[in-house]
Amino acid sequence: MSHHYKISILFLLFLSFKSKCQNSDSIALRKNFDYYLTKSNCYKNLEFLSTKIESRLSGSPGAAKAVIWAKKAMYEAGADTVYLQPCMVPHWVRGPKESCYSIDTKTKQKVNYSVCALGNSVGTSQNGVNGKVISVNSFNQLDSLGEKNIKGKIVFFNVFFDHKHLSTGSCYGETVTYRYSGPSKAAKYGAIATIVRSMSSINNDFPHTGVMGYDTTVSLKKIPACAISYSGADQLANKLKNNPSLSLYLKTSCEMLKKELSYNVVGEIKGSEKPNEIIMAGGHLDAWDNGQGAHDDGAGVVQAIEVLALYKKQNIKPKHTIRAVAFMNEENGGAGGKAYFEDTKKNNLKHIAALESDAGGFSPRGISIDTTLGAFKKVLTWKSLLDPYFVQYIKPGGHGADISYLKELDVPLIGFEPDGQKYFDYHHTSDDTFDKINKRELELSAGVIGSLIYLIDMKGW
Amino acid sequence: MSHHYKISILFLLFLSFKSKCQNSDSIALRKNFDYYLTKSNCYKNLEFLSTKIESRLSGSPGAAKAVIWAKKAMYEAGADTVYLQPCMVPHWVRGPKESCYSIDTKTKQKVNYSVCALGNSVGTSQNGVNGKVISVNSFNQLDSLGEKNIKGKIVFFNVFFDHKHLSTGSCYGETVTYRYSGPSKAAKYGAIATIVRSMSSINNDFPHTGVMGYDTTVSLKKIPACAISYSGADQLANKLKNNPSLSLYLKTSCEMLKKELSYNVVGEIKGSEKPNEIIMAGGHLDAWDNGQGAHDDGAGVVQAIEVLALYKKQNIKPKHTIRAVAFMNEENGGAGGKAYFEDTKKNNLKHIAALESDAGGFSPRGISIDTTLGAFKKVLTWKSLLDPYFVQYIKPGGHGADISYLKELDVPLIGFEPDGQKYFDYHHTSDDTFDKINKRELELSAGVIGSLIYLIDMKGW
Repeated sequence: MSHHYKISILFLLFLSFKSKCQNSDSIALRKNFDYYLTKSNCYKNLEFLSTKIESRLSGSPGAAKAVIWAKKAMYEAGADTVYLQPCMVPHWVRGPKESCYSIDTKTKQKVNYSVCALGNSVGTSQNGVNGKVISVNSFNQLDSLGEKNIKGKIVFFNVFFDHKHLSTGSCYGETVTYRYSGPSKAAKYGAIATIVRSMSSINNDFPHTGVMGYDTTVSLKKIPACAISYSGADQLANKLKNNPSLSLYLKTSCEMLKKELSYNVVGEIKGSEKPNEIIMAGGHLDAWDNGQGAHDDGAGVVQAIEVLALYKKQNIKPKHTIRAVAFMNEENGGAGGKAYFEDTKKNNLKHIAALESDAGGFSPRGISIDTTLGAFKKVLTWKSLLDPYFVQYIKPGGHGADISYLKELDVPLIGFEPDGQKYFDYHHTSDDTFDKINKRELELSAGVIGSLIYLIDMKGW
Repeated sequence: MSHHYKISILFLLFLSFKSKCQNSDSIALRKNFDYYLTKSNCYKNLEFLSTKIESRLSGSPGAAKAVIWAKKAMYEAGADTVYLQPCMVPHWVRGPKESCYSIDTKTKQKVNYSVCALGNSVGTSQNGVNGKVISVNSFNQLDSLGEKNIKGKIVFFNVFFDHKHLSTGSCYGETVTYRYSGPSKAAKYGAIATIVRSMSSINNDFPHTGVMGYDTTVSLKKIPACAISYSGADQLANKLKNNPSLSLYLKTSCEMLKKELSYNVVGEIKGSEKPNEIIMAGGHLDAWDNGQGAHDDGAGVVQAIEVLALYKKQNIKPKHTIRAVAFMNEENGGAGGKAYFEDTKKNNLKHIAALESDAGGFSPRGISIDTTLGAFKKVLTWKSLLDPYFVQYIKPGGHGADISYLKELDVPLIGFEPDGQKYFDYHHTSDDTFDKINKRELELSAGVIGSLIYLIDMKGW
């Protein structure tokens, strides 16, 4: 028997061992997905959260109810312990429905536009604001126009998604700055209000809200800011073309009240071998007040809760401590994410991975990982295991906002990415409702999340 | 300079050449997708086909209008020539809305069920049929029950999708036999009608029609056959549990009229180098009468037409002849597919590839190829080019029914596969309407189809 022959036999044994491992993993994952597709509770949980609890923006009575619900749901899923993790959150309220119209020069009739105040914005006065509209399509253009053209006017940021992007997230990423930073940039030149074209993939009449922030580094008037629907923006742009001195009336009644105490909800199953090492999956519990927050981010919350259920209902004992986290205040402040980080740091907790699902309850598409450690390479070796479950890619990249603070602690951060083509059809609108959720899509994505957590728990880094 | 060195340089040159090719291909594909995502007409075409033309089941006035529309749309897309390819198609009509109810034993009130006649079924008499219901969940059970339990009754095939399947097509494949073959199998034991649980992924009240066929190899009565909605089937099953001798009244008014002349619509751009070699992309123009046929298969038709537009509007001269085909009668006969095959054979036409898109207008997911030639391996080498456009897999496998006849001529057959989780939510129902189509998803999938045709044209096999 030659040396070469011996090596070959060892090599074959190794291959056979490796293939057996892959095979038993693949059987385990198939069992997980049987659970998700036939017995899981995430769809029913999402129905309850979306339709039985009133809107749940941070600080609202709905958010408080959602916290109580999440605690109960986590216990029902099989958590050993559920913590409420306190955080002080902004309490912004929209007030009565916004009003925005111009007067048609010929018919003298009101032309109404669908608008909604942006989160954290101040409202107009009781009498609303009235002003000429100036349309701009970039901050550069705003700067060139300057005070002499802007002062006393309503600035209309008329910036479209660039549909050449394959990822709608990239479309959003390029335009969201006009929503977030536009108001203060316009106020610098004396604008009295801003209206931003909705960050929308499709042409319809739903205005898309979302957070804005005033620049507090300089002394500037806080001006009211709102979003206009895609079709409303088209209509307004058209009117402006025919009548460049068009005036708009705008009334919003939103206001920022004083901060409220709220909570992240943290459910866990203690690890049987390494209880001090945490693997976490999360989504955010708060949602914009105008819709049901089914895709953003009820889906992420129920998927995280279902990770606990996977272990408990399948009677699997995790080696590490498994956590599901329902974060508070992702939408307009990030207080929950920060509180989770502070708690982790203060108590010197070790997370070996943190995953967030905050891109809707659609079919699985991929996984993105942000880590300086070897975790990425390890997850890559599981590609063929996850491939049958519609995981097209595992790539370095972004993740949810809530877990981003953990980067300072070198926690490998994982973003679950569903198919994203429709996300910005519903995002931050009253159309983000439970009937837009497909049961199988939600469950398959929950299955990928649960299976990834399962693989990390079984194999570590 | 050593020999080894020379080889290395040649190798590097080769690599550099290969990478330049890949690079120029990748730039070309990116340009294609720019076209699809910003300038293509497929969404508007689908809107017209779905909403401006009445229902277009084979033989109907709507189908005749759809043929005229497709011809016009192909010329507008840039076809050199558009042929109408004749075929004799069945002309089945539903007639007035179906009626199905039981009488509640306590309240004596009618309990109505949502049903629809199956395509090609005979209707009941004017007076309808009345009979006790017997529920079966397999053909084995039907056989065991036999004539003594079945005779004079209405057989209710109560078979669910097995949701453990990752592909909804597999769920459908397992259950569709009860729809297609159930009526004759039940008639063998003296059943007077059949009702099949809708081939549906979701629980709602839309009944799903679809083709059935009578077994004409034996002398059997043709009994009326219909489908009941998912929730209706639940309700019926529940009533039967409480009252095993429950009777149903069923009335359907459908009938098969005499065959009609109809057409495939074939649009082509002649090849500049190999005009006698055809690359074809198709979908089917006919659709069930109850809905708009937006996903099934308006989407496939407009995607095929858009292949012509890609060449014309982008000013690309194809080497081979590019064909878009809108097939007639896929749903209840396949006359169009057969006519296309006969024409191909008679005229000794050479197809180097035939692609069909008939699985809805959703996001791209993969490509399946059925060929005994080297085409599969060649397409595999394009995986990395198609990967950014959400093509997760290229695998051996199925394709559309219309192109299946070409297998006899050794034509490599390609099935385009979009994400399929929602397809059987809408399939063959009145809910298959244009508003269920997402513009970007339709365009991205059209882009994959166009780009695949482009690569085959550029590189051949």
